Amino acid sequence: MTAEIICVGTELLLGDILNTNAQFLAQQLAQFGIPHYYQTVVGDNPARLQQVLAIACDRSEILIFTGGLGPTPDDLTTETIADFFGVPLEERPEILADIADKYNRRGREMTPSNRKQALIPQGAEILPNQWGTAPGIIWQPRPNLTILTFPGVPFEMQRMWQATAVPYLKSQGWGKEIIASRMLKFWGIAEAALAEKVAPFLNLSNPTVAPYASMGEVKLRVSAKAASAELADEMISPVAAQLQQIAGLDYYGADDDSLASVVGKLLQAANETLSVAESCTGGGLGSAIASVPGSSIYFQGGIISYDNQVKISLLGVNPDDLAQYGAVSETVAKQMAAGVRSLLSTTWGLSITGIAGPGGGTETKPVGLVYIGLAGPNGLVESCEHRFNPLQDRSLIRHFSTCSALDRLRRYLLS
Amino acid sequence: MTAEIICVGTELLLGDILNTNAQFLAQQLAQFGIPHYYQTVVGDNPARLQQVLAIACDRSEILIFTGGLGPTPDDLTTETIADFFGVPLEERPEILADIADKYNRRGREMTPSNRKQALIPQGAEILPNQWGTAPGIIWQPRPNLTILTFPGVPFEMQRMWQATAVPYLKSQGWGKEIIASRMLKFWGIAEAALAEKVAPFLNLSNPTVAPYASMGEVKLRVSAKAASAELADEMISPVAAQLQQIAGLDYYGADDDSLASVVGKLLQAANETLSVAESCTGGGLGSAIASVPGSSIYFQGGIISYDNQVKISLLGVNPDDLAQYGAVSETVAKQMAAGVRSLLSTTWGLSITGIAGPGGGTETKPVGLVYIGLAGPNGLVESCEHRFNPLQDRSLIRHFSTCSALDRLRRYLLS
Repeated sequence: MTAEIICVGTELLLGDILNTNAQFLAQQLAQFGIPHYYQTVVGDNPARLQQVLAIACDRSEILIFTGGLGPTPDDLTTETIADFFGVPLEERPEILADIADKYNRRGREMTPSNRKQALIPQGAEILPNQWGTAPGIIWQPRPNLTILTFPGVPFEMQRMWQATAVPYLKSQGWGKEIIASRMLKFWGIAEAALAEKVAPFLNLSNPTVAPYASMGEVKLRVSAKAASAELADEMISPVAAQLQQIAGLDYYGADDDSLASVVGKLLQAANETLSVAESCTGGGLGSAIASVPGSSIYFQGGIISYDNQVKISLLGVNPDDLAQYGAVSETVAKQMAAGVRSLLSTTWGLSITGIAGPGGGTETKPVGLVYIGLAGPNGLVESCEHRFNPLQDRSLIRHFSTCSALDRLRRYLLS
Repeated sequence: MTAEIICVGTELLLGDILNTNAQFLAQQLAQFGIPHYYQTVVGDNPARLQQVLAIACDRSEILIFTGGLGPTPDDLTTETIADFFGVPLEERPEILADIADKYNRRGREMTPSNRKQALIPQGAEILPNQWGTAPGIIWQPRPNLTILTFPGVPFEMQRMWQATAVPYLKSQGWGKEIIASRMLKFWGIAEAALAEKVAPFLNLSNPTVAPYASMGEVKLRVSAKAASAELADEMISPVAAQLQQIAGLDYYGADDDSLASVVGKLLQAANETLSVAESCTGGGLGSAIASVPGSSIYFQGGIISYDNQVKISLLGVNPDDLAQYGAVSETVAKQMAAGVRSLLSTTWGLSITGIAGPGGGTETKPVGLVYIGLAGPNGLVESCEHRFNPLQDRSLIRHFSTCSALDRLRRYLLS
C-alpha cells in the first residue's frame, strides 16, 4: 500500500506560492510509516488533472489531494475526480447548512457560489473543515483505492489532516511502526559549531540526529523508528539528554517550545512578572510574549517607545543621555528597561533599542546594531550589544532582536 | 513547447526539506513565457525515476531535473537518464580537472567518489557549476526533447540556472514573450463575494484574473502575456483599475503593499501621527506598523496594556467601566484609543481589546470577540465589534485583529 500526493493549483505552477502542503503531508506519511514515492503538482485544469489521476491510480492506493476545493469557478478538484470515476455529484445539505452558519456568525450572507462546495461524489464521506468553508472528502471509488481531498490553504489543510485523516489512518491499522521525532532547539550557537560539538551523534542510525538551521535558530532532530510512540520516545530520550548536556545553556527547549514559552514557564514557576519597552521592534517583543496562551499571568504589558519623546515622558529616559549617547545606546537601553519595570511594577523589565534598517545607519552605529536592556530585582540593570548582519533585512533584524531579548532573560532566569 | 519540472530526492519525499527549487523554476518559466503544466517529485530510485521520465517525455519537450547529481551512491539522476535513452556515459576530463581544482583550492583532496560526477551521457553538453562540485548537463537525447539537469542545493541551482539556462533559453528564442503580474489585495470581503462581483473578469484570457485567499486576505492576480514588461503593464493597468473601482474601499493595495504600509502612506501624506493601545495582540499591531521602513515619521509608539491595571493607570480607562462592561467591551476599546491618543499626543489612537483564546471565553463573550477602538480629530471616538471564528487559533485571531484595526483606520483616512 503506497500513498501519493497530488497538489492542484495554477498558483503552484506559476511559482506564486511555495508548496508547503507537500512537505507537511510527506512528514505525516513518514511518521505513519506509509510508503510514498511520488508527488505531483498540476494546475486547475480538468483534462490534465484527469491524466495525473489516471497515472496515480495505477501506482498508488491512497491519493491525497490538496487545493481546488474553493467556491470559485477555477476550483475543480472534486468534480474532476467524480467525473473521472463516472460518479455523479450530490448536494449535501449538512455542508450547505454549515457554510451558511459560518457566514451568519460573521454577520455575512452566503453567496450562491458557495453552493458548489456542498457538492460531493455519491458515496463519499465528508471531511469536515471547521476552519474554512471548503470541506474535503474521503472516498473509495473502487476497491483498494482511497481518495482524500483537502483545501489548499495550509492552516486549514493541516488542521483538517490532524482532525480527520489521522484518526482514519489509525483506524486502518497504519502507524504500527512509526517514526517519532523530537526537535531540540538552540539559541546563541551557530549550526556548524553545534554540529562539531555533537559530531559523533550525527552518524547514529536509530535514533538518527540531523541538524537544521533557520532564522538564527539551530535545531537537532532526533528521530526513532519503533513499534509505538512510547518505545520511540524511550530511544529518543537518552540521546536528547546527552545532546542537551553537551549544548548547556544554548539548548532552550524542544518541539512546541518557543523562547517566549520557555521564558513564560520560568516566570510563572518563580511567580514573577515581566514588562517590556520597545523601540525598533515596535511591539514585536510584547507580541511574542503574548503569543503564549495564558501569558497574562506574568506579562503585564509595556511601552512601545518608538518616538524619543515617549522614551522621556513615559519611561523616564534622561533627555541629556538621549542627546549624548543617542537612542541606540547601552545607557538608553538600561533606562528603558528600568523605566518600564518601575512604571508597570514588574519583577523584570526588558528593553530593545536598535537600528533595524534599511535606513538610519551611520558609520559608528550601523544597521543591525541593537541593545537589549534588562532590569530586575536587587538593583540589576544591564545591557548587552548585538551587531547583526546589516545586509539582513529589517524583519530579520527585528526577529533576531526579539529572540535575543527573550534569550537574555531566559539565561538570567536559569542562572 | 512545454516544460516540466522533475525534482529528485528522497529527502523531499520524507518532508525533510521544502521544495523551493520547484517554486524558483516555476517563476523562471513563467517569466520566460514557457508553458509548464506538471511538477513531479520522485525519490533517488532508478526504476521510479525512469517511470517518471517515460511519462514526462510523452507530454513535455523540455525536462528540467534538480537533485541527484552529487558524489554519493544514492545520487543517480545522470546515469538513470542516460540508461533510459540507451546512451553510454563517458568520463569528461575537464569536469574531473575542475573538481580536483576546487578541492585543491580548499586544501583538500578529491575523493574517489567525486569521479562519478565527471560521467555524463555521450553527446551531452556540460552546464558548469562554479558554486559546487556537481555540474549539470544540457542534452537532446532525441529530436524535440531537451533535458537540463541541476544540483539539488538551491543556492547552486539558482546561480547555475542564471548563468547557463537563461542564456540558453534566450538563444532558443524564449523570453520574447513574458508573463507579468500584478497582485491586487482586498480586506473586508470574502473570496466568494469578491469573485461574484468581478465574475466576468475571471473569464478573460489575456490578461487573466485569478482569485486567491489566505489568512483573511483576498487577492486577485492580474497576469498578462506580452512582448515586454512595459506592454504587459499596459494591458494590466486598465483591468486593475476596473477591478479596483468595483471593489471600492475593500481594495487596499497591490503587490508589496500591506495594510500597514498603506495606512503609513496615508498618514504621511496627511502629516498625521498614530499611537496604539493593545491588549490581546500584545504589541502585534505596533509591530505591524513598525515593520514598514520609515514608519518612525508617523508612528509614535503605544501602550501594551495586557494587564487591566495598565489600562487604568496609563490609558485612563475608568475602573468602574472596566468592572461594569469588562475589559473586552466597546466602552473600554474607546477609552483605550482616546487614552493613548491623548497620552502620546497623536492625531489618531487605535486600540484592540479581545479574547484570543484558547481560554478566557464565556457564553456572552466567546473566544474571537474583539473590539477595535479609534480616536481621532474633532472628538471622534468610536468602536466596532468583530466576532472571529472561535475555533481558529490564537495566532490567527490576533492576526485578524491587527489587520482589522489597520483596515478600520485606513477606511477612515480615505473617507
